[in-house]
Amino acid sequence: MNQLPRFITFEGTEGVGKTTAVDSFCAKLDSLGIAHIRTREPGGSPLAEDLRKILLDNKTHINDDTELLLMFTARADHLHRTILPALSDGKWVICDRFFDSTVAYQGFGRFGGDERELAKIARLIADFIPRQPDLTFWLDLDPAIGLERAGKRSQADRFESAGQGFFDKTYQGFLYQYQKHPERIKRINADQRPDDVTGEIMQVLQEYLAD
Amino acid sequence: MNQLPRFITFEGTEGVGKTTAVDSFCAKLDSLGIAHIRTREPGGSPLAEDLRKILLDNKTHINDDTELLLMFTARADHLHRTILPALSDGKWVICDRFFDSTVAYQGFGRFGGDERELAKIARLIADFIPRQPDLTFWLDLDPAIGLERAGKRSQADRFESAGQGFFDKTYQGFLYQYQKHPERIKRINADQRPDDVTGEIMQVLQEYLAD
Repeated sequence: MNQLPRFITFEGTEGVGKTTAVDSFCAKLDSLGIAHIRTREPGGSPLAEDLRKILLDNKTHINDDTELLLMFTARADHLHRTILPALSDGKWVICDRFFDSTVAYQGFGRFGGDERELAKIARLIADFIPRQPDLTFWLDLDPAIGLERAGKRSQADRFESAGQGFFDKTYQGFLYQYQKHPERIKRINADQRPDDVTGEIMQVLQEYLAD
Repeated sequence: MNQLPRFITFEGTEGVGKTTAVDSFCAKLDSLGIAHIRTREPGGSPLAEDLRKILLDNKTHINDDTELLLMFTARADHLHRTILPALSDGKWVICDRFFDSTVAYQGFGRFGGDERELAKIARLIADFIPRQPDLTFWLDLDPAIGLERAGKRSQADRFESAGQGFFDKTYQGFLYQYQKHPERIKRINADQRPDDVTGEIMQVLQEYLAD
């Protein structure tokens, strides 16, 4: 198996089973003896975690432009403080959400897929994200099913409380990214038992590493 | 005198006398019966003031890209929460520092005037600052004199402690902006008594409003 350090992200709408999938994936890497770190967005570094609190706080009204910039500020800190040092150290980086979530949540959820807003996000990625993921698993599930799962789990945060219409648009954003970057983004059927989701992910990983 | 609401910024390196100049300018507006708000960057809104604390904290190491994005996050919040509402209300907005400071401090101070970095800043301005200042007073003073004044005044913050070389580059950044936007930016000789600085500013304002 190719031992170059890899930067792998997991994406999807609420309640698709990302946490479980990342758990299993990291356990598999452990069993294969592959050194890695596990991280998440928004957050993943001390400054970014502080900004995460602002972003997810239901009481804070944040302008859409401000939200987008706050997301990229946290991402730049996360990239430079956590992700790049780990990759330099020879470790794989497994990250729960990255910029595909921004395209989905801000670009589609907030801005409805407006071309001008998507171009702004693309410029932020090009200017501030010098290292992009090698491989992305998109856990694809009907957003209504995911939202029902997420709703059962906990108190709604600022994003979860945005409602069904918001998540339908967000789903379109993941689909858009998937269609735009089919070489990087692998679509995983998340409407199956967790073990089967993991099985599908590991098979895609094997194929990817064999190339 | 033309009563359209105006957005006016004051710029310059450390210790040029911006605070005194803004004090006098706002007092003049009061005496002319011109409704206005006085604000500053980084800061000027609750979220932006929180981010200001992070930016100026000497103990925090922040990556240059992260610093730039943090500055624009604070600016977007400040613009949408404080500046635009005041202008809509028919008030003038008098702001101590705005994006010219980012070109000077980040673009030149941190990045040494690198073309690629200046282009990144220009894209952030174009994408996220829909309302730009009508008029900018650049208080022009030899940065060595300004730094000596500022050093006498208080404990150095994260920018002030960056040293003389940093401020020489920052000065070049203000000069660059002045040469690029001569219609908007008015150069004021800050190496004179405060009353004379104010006199020069008010004369420029009269000429500007007479146009």
